[in-house]
Amino acid sequence: MSSTDLLLTFNTGSSTVKIGIFAIDGAEARRIGKGVIDFRAEPLSLGLTKGLQIVEMPLKAEVTEDLHGVIDETFARLADHFDMTATRAAGHRVVHGGDRFTRPIALDAAAIDAVDALTPLAPLHQPQALRFIRALRHLKPHLAQTASFDTAFHATQDDLVRRFAIPRALHDEGIKRYGFHGLSYKFIAGELRRKAPRTAKVVVAHLGSGASLCALDDGISRDCSMGFSTLDGIPMATRPGWLDPGIILHLARQRKQSFEEIEDLLYHRCGLLGVSGISADTRDLLKDGRPEARQAIDLFTLRVAGEIGRMAATLGGLDAIVFTAGIGEHQPEIRAGVAKRLCWLGFAIDEKVNAANDFTISTRESRIAAHVIATDEEQIIAEEALSVLGSG
Amino acid sequence: MSSTDLLLTFNTGSSTVKIGIFAIDGAEARRIGKGVIDFRAEPLSLGLTKGLQIVEMPLKAEVTEDLHGVIDETFARLADHFDMTATRAAGHRVVHGGDRFTRPIALDAAAIDAVDALTPLAPLHQPQALRFIRALRHLKPHLAQTASFDTAFHATQDDLVRRFAIPRALHDEGIKRYGFHGLSYKFIAGELRRKAPRTAKVVVAHLGSGASLCALDDGISRDCSMGFSTLDGIPMATRPGWLDPGIILHLARQRKQSFEEIEDLLYHRCGLLGVSGISADTRDLLKDGRPEARQAIDLFTLRVAGEIGRMAATLGGLDAIVFTAGIGEHQPEIRAGVAKRLCWLGFAIDEKVNAANDFTISTRESRIAAHVIATDEEQIIAEEALSVLGSG
Repeated sequence: MSSTDLLLTFNTGSSTVKIGIFAIDGAEARRIGKGVIDFRAEPLSLGLTKGLQIVEMPLKAEVTEDLHGVIDETFARLADHFDMTATRAAGHRVVHGGDRFTRPIALDAAAIDAVDALTPLAPLHQPQALRFIRALRHLKPHLAQTASFDTAFHATQDDLVRRFAIPRALHDEGIKRYGFHGLSYKFIAGELRRKAPRTAKVVVAHLGSGASLCALDDGISRDCSMGFSTLDGIPMATRPGWLDPGIILHLARQRKQSFEEIEDLLYHRCGLLGVSGISADTRDLLKDGRPEARQAIDLFTLRVAGEIGRMAATLGGLDAIVFTAGIGEHQPEIRAGVAKRLCWLGFAIDEKVNAANDFTISTRESRIAAHVIATDEEQIIAEEALSVLGSG
Repeated sequence: MSSTDLLLTFNTGSSTVKIGIFAIDGAEARRIGKGVIDFRAEPLSLGLTKGLQIVEMPLKAEVTEDLHGVIDETFARLADHFDMTATRAAGHRVVHGGDRFTRPIALDAAAIDAVDALTPLAPLHQPQALRFIRALRHLKPHLAQTASFDTAFHATQDDLVRRFAIPRALHDEGIKRYGFHGLSYKFIAGELRRKAPRTAKVVVAHLGSGASLCALDDGISRDCSMGFSTLDGIPMATRPGWLDPGIILHLARQRKQSFEEIEDLLYHRCGLLGVSGISADTRDLLKDGRPEARQAIDLFTLRVAGEIGRMAATLGGLDAIVFTAGIGEHQPEIRAGVAKRLCWLGFAIDEKVNAANDFTISTRESRIAAHVIATDEEQIIAEEALSVLGSG
């Protein structure tokens, strides 16, 4: 590959796709730009960042099921800024690798089918990445594509930790804790190796609109709060985290709710939005003076702190807590709220450095270190794509 | 009331009823006997303990929905050993008091209806107590009856702790964490006041075939692992504890299971039984050499230890752990398994005193005390009955 070859990454969420543009520098992937399409926005547009330059480019294409028009136009718009003819590969974030995919893979027709076969494990998320993968395969048949799995980083977890207290037959069929946000945790583990190499037992709090925690021991995943589905673990923007299963039986029996209503409730109307009745966004809630907003924030920090306590039991100790993703990186109030609930562990953060979002926010006296690290899932997708293509 | 007046307590489970026979000694209730009927046994019989005497008395009555025959015969059999004509009151354990009943009550017709109105909150458990209450009201219309609620002890919990991350409207309708095993925790709190008065922050592990943990601060309930329904919290004999709600959606959509099938699965085929595939009883599992048995035990101790970690975050500290109920009182291996997972907290138990089920089983060096206390829910039912009748 020449030094100007490009690599694209696609990180598809429920309503957006983030596109990473990377230059291939030998075995390294160096980010040179990023784009985002928000499918909720009207008119549709591609937001592009290249160095200090930020451009908003309207898209005329209709959003069709196959996405062909949108992708064609996106490549055309990107071509105004990058030499898209030098694009050598596209790496995709795929939510679920099941038990089968514990490392990134090249996406040929058989592999795409195998990824699709895992859709029952993530019915709302898996199809989003598959749409882009199939569209690119149709539009750019010669472009190499790879998949990076959110679950793969957690394949190191003990069989015991991955079990729910359900019949063995269901576990053997695949109802187990897979863990998610693995690309983010892999990035954080790498950063920790460089910046805090002597920290063994770490809980990483990936707090975004989807949120989870991961217990790392020497960079290896030992536990994750999000287990089988993306509903699990701590409360999120609109999802509840783990629940008393009796609630779902109650909704079905006493409130005569259908399965579809319950599913919609759990994915879209719980979490911060449900508790506050105001907003799914912690930024709004922190600014809002109403007690319902405060309650949602307090429940969030209570559950995050509780989960850190639970994970310390899995790890058998705790040396550091890392905050990352949108909320974790940018919201000192949330970090302070969590820290306050853990002061009994000798954990304390420094108000000033916390307010500045510094790398180390714990006090000198704190028995547990606290760090803020900006995560970069696309960097991992790009690196994994190169490793797959290099070894292919 | 004369000094020989009797008070009966009824503690109904899913397949047994435990009957306590108490002498009323002024304002005190002193246990003088106990009986148990196991409705799974054929032929039906009443097991009676009076002092050192243990008698098994066959019952000829048919088990009818109204229980009239069984109760009549039980009173007749008890009359061979106690002066049943001196029976002044019957106190019942009722699982759910909802938001309405935060203390014990006298059961008149209106109160019975009000207790029945809470059946939707505990559809499998509430009717069991109501059957006995209604049968006694019919057969002994002049006998005073009282109800003691499993949820009442937890009414002290913060509104925040009682919230699930679900829409406010559902919380306001009653889908919240009530907490259970309150009679047991009330008894333990009393014992702690007497035997370890300076212990403030305590997690009590009530480990029986139903199991939960309670966070006590100065004897006041601050959190309970079992929230809205008896399915919640830690894994139990046949129930799973909290779950990723995505599992239930998966069972419904991918496996086409009905809510009735899912309900049966969750109440009767999960927990230790489901994980081991061998037995719901830790005694069997501890004796069994197979790895599946070991796995079930290990998952149980992992989840109990994790829950203790979570509750320490609610309490903001941890001074002591109390083990109680069948497993907690009599199974040193389980206590040792939990302790091992918490050694990072400076928690250590002494093998010898642990094996002897002594009151204090922690080592002198342990930063957290560990106690074994035999619980007595019927004592609390009896005391609450007297307090209700005395104030009536």
